[in-house]
Amino acid sequence: MRTVLILLVLIYWAAGKPLEADTRSEKKCGYQSCHKIHRTKLNVHLVPHSHDDVGWLKTVDQYFFGSKTNIQMAGIQYIIGSSIDALRSNPDRRFIQVETAFFWKWWKQQSEQVRDDVRYLVNNGRLEIINGAWSMNDEAATHYHSIIDQFTLGLRTINDTLGECGQPKIGWQIDPFGHSREMASIFSQLGFEGQFFARLDYRDSKLRHNRSELEMVWQGSPSLGKSSNLFTGVLYDFYTTPAYFCWDVLCSDVPINNDEESPDYNELDIVNRFADYVLKGSKYFNTNNLLVTMGGDFTYQAAEMFFNNMDKLIQGFRKFRPDINIIYSTPSCYLKAVNEISKGNGIKYTVKTDDFFPYASKTYSYWTGYFTSRPNSKRFERQGNNILQVTKQLVTFEKLLNGKDYSKNLTLLKEAMGIMQHHDAITGTEKQHVVGDYVRLLEKGIKAAETNVGSIIHDLLSKDGTSGNLKIKLESCLLSNVSYCHPSKADQFTVAVYNPLSRNASHYVRLPVDKTRFQITGSNGDDIPYTIMPAIANFTDFADSSPSDLVFLADDIPPLGLKYFHLKVQHTRDIPKIKEVVQHRLGDEVSGFTIDDVTGLLQTVTLNGVTLKVKQEFMYYHGANGSNLGEENQASGAYIFRPADSTRTAVSFADKVTFTVHSSEFVDEVHQTINSWIKQVIRLYKQENYIEFDWVVGPIDISTNSGTEVISRFTADVDSNGTFYTDSNGRQMLRRVRDYRETYDYTDEEPVSGNYYPITSRITLRDHSRNLEIAVLNDRAQGGSSLHDGQMELMVHRRLLNDDDFGVQEALNEVEFDKGVIARGQHFLTFGPIKSDDSKTSSALQRDLAQKKILNAWVFVGNATGDEFSYENLKEKINFQFSGLRRSLPPNVQILTLEPADDRSILLRLEHVFEEGEDDVLSKPVAVDIADLFTLFNIESIRETTLGANQWLDDNEKLEWDLHEYSDGRASVNYIEESRVGSSLDDFVVTLTPMKIRTFIIYV
Amino acid sequence: MRTVLILLVLIYWAAGKPLEADTRSEKKCGYQSCHKIHRTKLNVHLVPHSHDDVGWLKTVDQYFFGSKTNIQMAGIQYIIGSSIDALRSNPDRRFIQVETAFFWKWWKQQSEQVRDDVRYLVNNGRLEIINGAWSMNDEAATHYHSIIDQFTLGLRTINDTLGECGQPKIGWQIDPFGHSREMASIFSQLGFEGQFFARLDYRDSKLRHNRSELEMVWQGSPSLGKSSNLFTGVLYDFYTTPAYFCWDVLCSDVPINNDEESPDYNELDIVNRFADYVLKGSKYFNTNNLLVTMGGDFTYQAAEMFFNNMDKLIQGFRKFRPDINIIYSTPSCYLKAVNEISKGNGIKYTVKTDDFFPYASKTYSYWTGYFTSRPNSKRFERQGNNILQVTKQLVTFEKLLNGKDYSKNLTLLKEAMGIMQHHDAITGTEKQHVVGDYVRLLEKGIKAAETNVGSIIHDLLSKDGTSGNLKIKLESCLLSNVSYCHPSKADQFTVAVYNPLSRNASHYVRLPVDKTRFQITGSNGDDIPYTIMPAIANFTDFADSSPSDLVFLADDIPPLGLKYFHLKVQHTRDIPKIKEVVQHRLGDEVSGFTIDDVTGLLQTVTLNGVTLKVKQEFMYYHGANGSNLGEENQASGAYIFRPADSTRTAVSFADKVTFTVHSSEFVDEVHQTINSWIKQVIRLYKQENYIEFDWVVGPIDISTNSGTEVISRFTADVDSNGTFYTDSNGRQMLRRVRDYRETYDYTDEEPVSGNYYPITSRITLRDHSRNLEIAVLNDRAQGGSSLHDGQMELMVHRRLLNDDDFGVQEALNEVEFDKGVIARGQHFLTFGPIKSDDSKTSSALQRDLAQKKILNAWVFVGNATGDEFSYENLKEKINFQFSGLRRSLPPNVQILTLEPADDRSILLRLEHVFEEGEDDVLSKPVAVDIADLFTLFNIESIRETTLGANQWLDDNEKLEWDLHEYSDGRASVNYIEESRVGSSLDDFVVTLTPMKIRTFIIYV
Repeated sequence: MRTVLILLVLIYWAAGKPLEADTRSEKKCGYQSCHKIHRTKLNVHLVPHSHDDVGWLKTVDQYFFGSKTNIQMAGIQYIIGSSIDALRSNPDRRFIQVETAFFWKWWKQQSEQVRDDVRYLVNNGRLEIINGAWSMNDEAATHYHSIIDQFTLGLRTINDTLGECGQPKIGWQIDPFGHSREMASIFSQLGFEGQFFARLDYRDSKLRHNRSELEMVWQGSPSLGKSSNLFTGVLYDFYTTPAYFCWDVLCSDVPINNDEESPDYNELDIVNRFADYVLKGSKYFNTNNLLVTMGGDFTYQAAEMFFNNMDKLIQGFRKFRPDINIIYSTPSCYLKAVNEISKGNGIKYTVKTDDFFPYASKTYSYWTGYFTSRPNSKRFERQGNNILQVTKQLVTFEKLLNGKDYSKNLTLLKEAMGIMQHHDAITGTEKQHVVGDYVRLLEKGIKAAETNVGSIIHDLLSKDGTSGNLKIKLESCLLSNVSYCHPSKADQFTVAVYNPLSRNASHYVRLPVDKTRFQITGSNGDDIPYTIMPAIANFTDFADSSPSDLVFLADDIPPLGLKYFHLKVQHTRDIPKIKEVVQHRLGDEVSGFTIDDVTGLLQTVTLNGVTLKVKQEFMYYHGANGSNLGEENQASGAYIFRPADSTRTAVSFADKVTFTVHSSEFVDEVHQTINSWIKQVIRLYKQENYIEFDWVVGPIDISTNSGTEVISRFTADVDSNGTFYTDSNGRQMLRRVRDYRETYDYTDEEPVSGNYYPITSRITLRDHSRNLEIAVLNDRAQGGSSLHDGQMELMVHRRLLNDDDFGVQEALNEVEFDKGVIARGQHFLTFGPIKSDDSKTSSALQRDLAQKKILNAWVFVGNATGDEFSYENLKEKINFQFSGLRRSLPPNVQILTLEPADDRSILLRLEHVFEEGEDDVLSKPVAVDIADLFTLFNIESIRETTLGANQWLDDNEKLEWDLHEYSDGRASVNYIEESRVGSSLDDFVVTLTPMKIRTFIIYV
Repeated sequence: MRTVLILLVLIYWAAGKPLEADTRSEKKCGYQSCHKIHRTKLNVHLVPHSHDDVGWLKTVDQYFFGSKTNIQMAGIQYIIGSSIDALRSNPDRRFIQVETAFFWKWWKQQSEQVRDDVRYLVNNGRLEIINGAWSMNDEAATHYHSIIDQFTLGLRTINDTLGECGQPKIGWQIDPFGHSREMASIFSQLGFEGQFFARLDYRDSKLRHNRSELEMVWQGSPSLGKSSNLFTGVLYDFYTTPAYFCWDVLCSDVPINNDEESPDYNELDIVNRFADYVLKGSKYFNTNNLLVTMGGDFTYQAAEMFFNNMDKLIQGFRKFRPDINIIYSTPSCYLKAVNEISKGNGIKYTVKTDDFFPYASKTYSYWTGYFTSRPNSKRFERQGNNILQVTKQLVTFEKLLNGKDYSKNLTLLKEAMGIMQHHDAITGTEKQHVVGDYVRLLEKGIKAAETNVGSIIHDLLSKDGTSGNLKIKLESCLLSNVSYCHPSKADQFTVAVYNPLSRNASHYVRLPVDKTRFQITGSNGDDIPYTIMPAIANFTDFADSSPSDLVFLADDIPPLGLKYFHLKVQHTRDIPKIKEVVQHRLGDEVSGFTIDDVTGLLQTVTLNGVTLKVKQEFMYYHGANGSNLGEENQASGAYIFRPADSTRTAVSFADKVTFTVHSSEFVDEVHQTINSWIKQVIRLYKQENYIEFDWVVGPIDISTNSGTEVISRFTADVDSNGTFYTDSNGRQMLRRVRDYRETYDYTDEEPVSGNYYPITSRITLRDHSRNLEIAVLNDRAQGGSSLHDGQMELMVHRRLLNDDDFGVQEALNEVEFDKGVIARGQHFLTFGPIKSDDSKTSSALQRDLAQKKILNAWVFVGNATGDEFSYENLKEKINFQFSGLRRSLPPNVQILTLEPADDRSILLRLEHVFEEGEDDVLSKPVAVDIADLFTLFNIESIRETTLGANQWLDDNEKLEWDLHEYSDGRASVNYIEESRVGSSLDDFVVTLTPMKIRTFIIYV
């Protein structure tokens, strides 16, 4: 079996030609395969679909195989299998397949006969792949890197298995709990025609129903303008089957009895009731088309059952209601029909330019808790992305260097990361045992990805090209957050610091160590200075936790490059100086901070010579307990954030905190103890222009029988005027106004939660009178807000005692080793001028810092015990430095993706990391000549694809829509009529306009 | 829809050529399509199957469409549909389809594409039709007429839809509650290779396991000898899926996870556990083959689910247990494998000659209650058979007379009768609402069948061939049992009495009437004498019930012929004499009976001049109440008969009953009142040589909170020596010995119920010293026994307060119109010499009487109000008599079936109604020349088929088995080594040996 699996994996990777033609000749997919619509009758598009969470109440495997029916009767292999079976029976039937993680698991188990059948069905539009990503990703807590990666994985898998007709055209985000503008932009760049979803604020929904504005055109990016337009449809009655018409094995609605001789004959009655339903629904839409979702969570495990009755429903309409044209359909066929009817016929669509956050399903039910829920897995996912990008680059280099292809090492990590994006994974809205499985998968993926990292790095560094024989196994110290790293306990070890950024970067290496005296030798044989700092806290559950951190600077690491260090414990050397000082001012007059000597809290921060009053404190809300019976009894839970106290008041843990101060050559630290379970280090690395807040929170005390939601609040002396800014999936910034929504009337029943937004990367405040923007960046997604002017708060951890009744049936009361879990993380505070001619703008500072944190230099450590690994011996064989690029790219350009595409080609993505207008200099279009950019290869030819790397860009065509002329001013303020995006490709010079990502298959 | 249905029905009927070849050329069905077995390894035959009751907890329609999931999740359309779907996915998969009632419902709804697919699957042995009858009939309460009919309907439907490859080879009686010898004989005559079932007495089962005698050869009929041999297999572990391996949607066993990377991987473990199971099971069998049923009640609604896991199971065995050859299989492939391995290799089978009644599943759980449960539907079913045979004959004649084809009128009745044979229909083991639906179907079928009876009869009688214009609608008086008949309330009406017997018969017409003075005119214009008798009881729920019965004799009706009568109410005529007399002796010295003047009970009976002391009394058992928790708490219920008092004691309702005596020219009656809810008429028709007991029982009193089971016990002065005789499905007679079983040790935990047997037609006692046999015949199936010498008892009605826990979850407490139901019925007592040279033997008397009661002359009544229908006007147009045969057949031959086969052919069955040795004269072979037998047609050509009329007899081939030489004497006493059955067909002379049924398609 293992052999088979590996073989399949090989086939899959080897077959990575996005446009390889399927062997069957006859194809009639896409719009050609749609059933005919009628120009005047109501067209009812029945869309059979199954919503299959990639983990939720059960693990991915449990869902796939259908085990643990005591938890939930759900088996994906049965859903796909029986749907394929049912499609064969009647060529009119349609089905859509969404989650490629499951499809791939299923496909691997199928015989060639079944695979041929599936391709045949796809080639004839009877089975349509929709969305096609590895999972249906969340849109709040996800980062755009990983969204793009998981679409790439899914879409290319579809290409490799099903061919061209499998390429999806539609985003199908029916379940995620709110919708981001960046996601809309990504869909558009993927070449998709539109997206559909079900969840939006109840007030927004009501208004859109009343105004027939459930369908709109969403401009996902003002920087990209018209090219980021995306038809967006809200399903008018959620994504499930209309009540009384669910003929799934999970439902118990009365089946259609069409035998007129039977006493239970009900065909006419059901047809008429369905007709009433669709006639009512059609009133909310502008064309004579209505999409009716026929399915729901894990439906179609017994597909024949559902299809059988839908066949009868359609037959019944033919007989009794010929006034209505009811057809099997798909979202793309529906969209095409809407376009056909509306375009040129005076039916115009409004334009959406903001986003759909936060999502309130009912008056007191704001889905803002999940922005923070399960902070540890949210952080682990971010680490997963970091090492995935690092290893993708390394594997590419190794392959080009000497033909060794370790691509398959990356498969598990890519898949795990795809799974983690799922809207019940990264969100923290799954059962406890399921998060355990996600972590297992991700850890397994990381371990697999770094299997050969030692030999790759040593190959890249080697003086003769193949000195990879060095038997130093390099590995990540994933547990350094709990002060544990196995190889750095050795007496002699090496450290490789890889910089995945497209420009030089410096990095403070920080490793848990048991010893205090080291000799560190760097690339030029120079003796590298270091310091020893006390560890932030004792992690007593890890018996081997180290008491101290070793800190040294890996300076100026080349772009996509390495620095290598040799470390040896010294018993004779002096211990580096660590001053434990009693002072409240740290750093200097350029960068520094002060501590209030009464409260022990942060008092001021100085950056680039500018000093600002900033207070930082840990506070909490008690989460509402509640029975969930009646909307006013909504409990705070994994999904929902609802403070027990509905006023805008968080409570501070302590008016006064104790602290110690540690100062050294590189870094100054204030170690605060807030209470018995909250500690924080406020830290200034001397070369950096930000302040780091390194906190450890937990186990949250629940001895008072109250759920507690912990925030870190920054209060600065800035006049933010009710406005703050939050990022969208770590990319675009969106303006938020407290107690206000752009497209509907805000009501203030939940004054805290109603102002919470997803903070995937940063939250900022602007004081225009002072030309100042202050930002807090984070290391994982969190919920956050600015509830008062000058304030920014981020929720860091939550522990709750009631389930919030959206299916999980467990309170979010995470327990590990019989205690509530501990979360550790960092915030990064920076500020600067909004506009600047001379110094860096705040935007430039934040973009730079954000890039550095998401693509952090990655530290690999290897036990190098033994004389053969002495510095002297090593330097004979290897260089201590490597660069993948010949030169740094400009600061507004980043290589977003570099990975092997197939045997002979590479997938390369370049991105412009600035938005239009952010920075006078950096927001300009930029041209990059990539011809000789890479040190290890020259580009032979290059061809541009859509964002998912599954379709040549010039093969992608899109429908046009007629738009309203925004006379009412609503939703049109940011709309850009003309596309500003150029896509010239002169030889190998790639031009990038702001926010542009360009994707290429390059042949080398 | 109606049009489509009718069209389909027409196609179905028109296509009735049993051997029409399917249009597809490539066929590889039957044994050719079996997966290979291994000669030395254990071959495990996985047999995927679904056991689909044709009504039980839900109605037929509810099961078919899958409604009422709150009662049971069961939808047959999904089972067949999804199984077909799943078979397409993998050519190795196999599935068997059993109940044709459901298959036909499903088939009618399918597209031509699906039908083609199904034929393709059948032609390749991937879908195999097993059993193939309309339903899986009960074997206790069913009559052989209806068993044969329902097989004919099912098998010919299969022929018409699926063609030759659909012809079943195997009887699949997995659920019926005991097994009859006649059924085995029928299977054999159907050309089947064998049968399988699951239920047999727990002691028998244990013994057969221990002796590896779960498989045997059953000789179904000593008269037919070897030709009635049938391989018979008991499924070793019931008919369900082995525990832990049920992967159906109705089960919750863990699915196979074959992903070695998954934490839930369990493939190897499941394979090994399954291997343990089959290795254990194989010990009970003689060859290296084991049949494992993979399925159960209503499984495979989501077939892909089950097959998916079986695929994996098989793959798992290939990987880990190549020592075992596990294959998808069918019962026929299994049987072939067993034959291949055993035949000629010294593996011999024992021979079974008795039957498998009664069935005890546990110590106190004797399934003998259902022999009697729901006496009204049991009777109604028998009436359904009667009118079905009558209308089949009439429709045939009409078609031959003038080409009018009313065959389709019979469809609903044939189907309803097929359904009624089901082992939860005729048995009375269904929910109350379901029996209501059965009655509805049967009534609807009867109404449909007699739609054109008036015009047919008038056509047959017409003087000029087409006087069918007579607008007298003739109909059956189905409610005459509650003294109600609508047309006989008219002032002028006609009565047609049709005799479906193949010889002349006389019949006492008995009609409820409101008036007392009539003029009845018969065939020769003669004035027919009549009498008026008081109705047996007031059926106050029918407001229109008539107070009296009109009785007259329809004398000497021709074979397959009619007599017609004209009746006119007379206001001037004398009222016929009805003597209400005070006397205890009725009848005369040839035939008569006396009543004990103290007790009011029957005292003596005189028949053919012989007088015997016979007492008849109504008695009861209280049914055991019980929780069913623990076998000793078994309750008496629909299935189970368990007296509360475990001694052999029934209690008499009354030591003394009141009675009145009514004597007339034709008939003498004693009207007994046993208590407020039991009444009986003991009746002697002057021309007949039997005594009739016409009882009305109910509503059974449950005011004492006891269930009550009412019996009628006959105690005669005969020395029966612990032995009695009961019929097998109304055909063969089987010897029963009290407190004894032929093939295993009887234990006496239930001395009453353990001696109960199904009495479908009659129970007899023999007194060899007096050369006397006494018999009680009934009018429906009942349970009965002889608990003491000289006694025979029949259970007539039961009402119980506890469910007996076999799934129905309702107590057998039948209620109608808010009261317990009333049952009415007849017993017929007769006796005569066992052997006789001069007078009729008791066998001859009983066979004659049984024939007359099962094929009773059928009375149609038509309102003939109006002068145009005066006798004088009628006699101008029609004859008052018709005969379908030119001559009566010999008394030992009966035309069992006469019905249109297709457009140009007729289905004819002739039967020898005697067993070998019953009667010195009548048990001889008999030859019948049918060339000019029929008045309306001459036979052009004739071809013999198997009993089901679905295969030419000479195309039927059977496997041979090696048999034990019966050295131990067990089970071999009746075995006939050489077949005595000849099947010569010289021109049109049909020879019949005892018990032989021969089936022909005749072209006219």
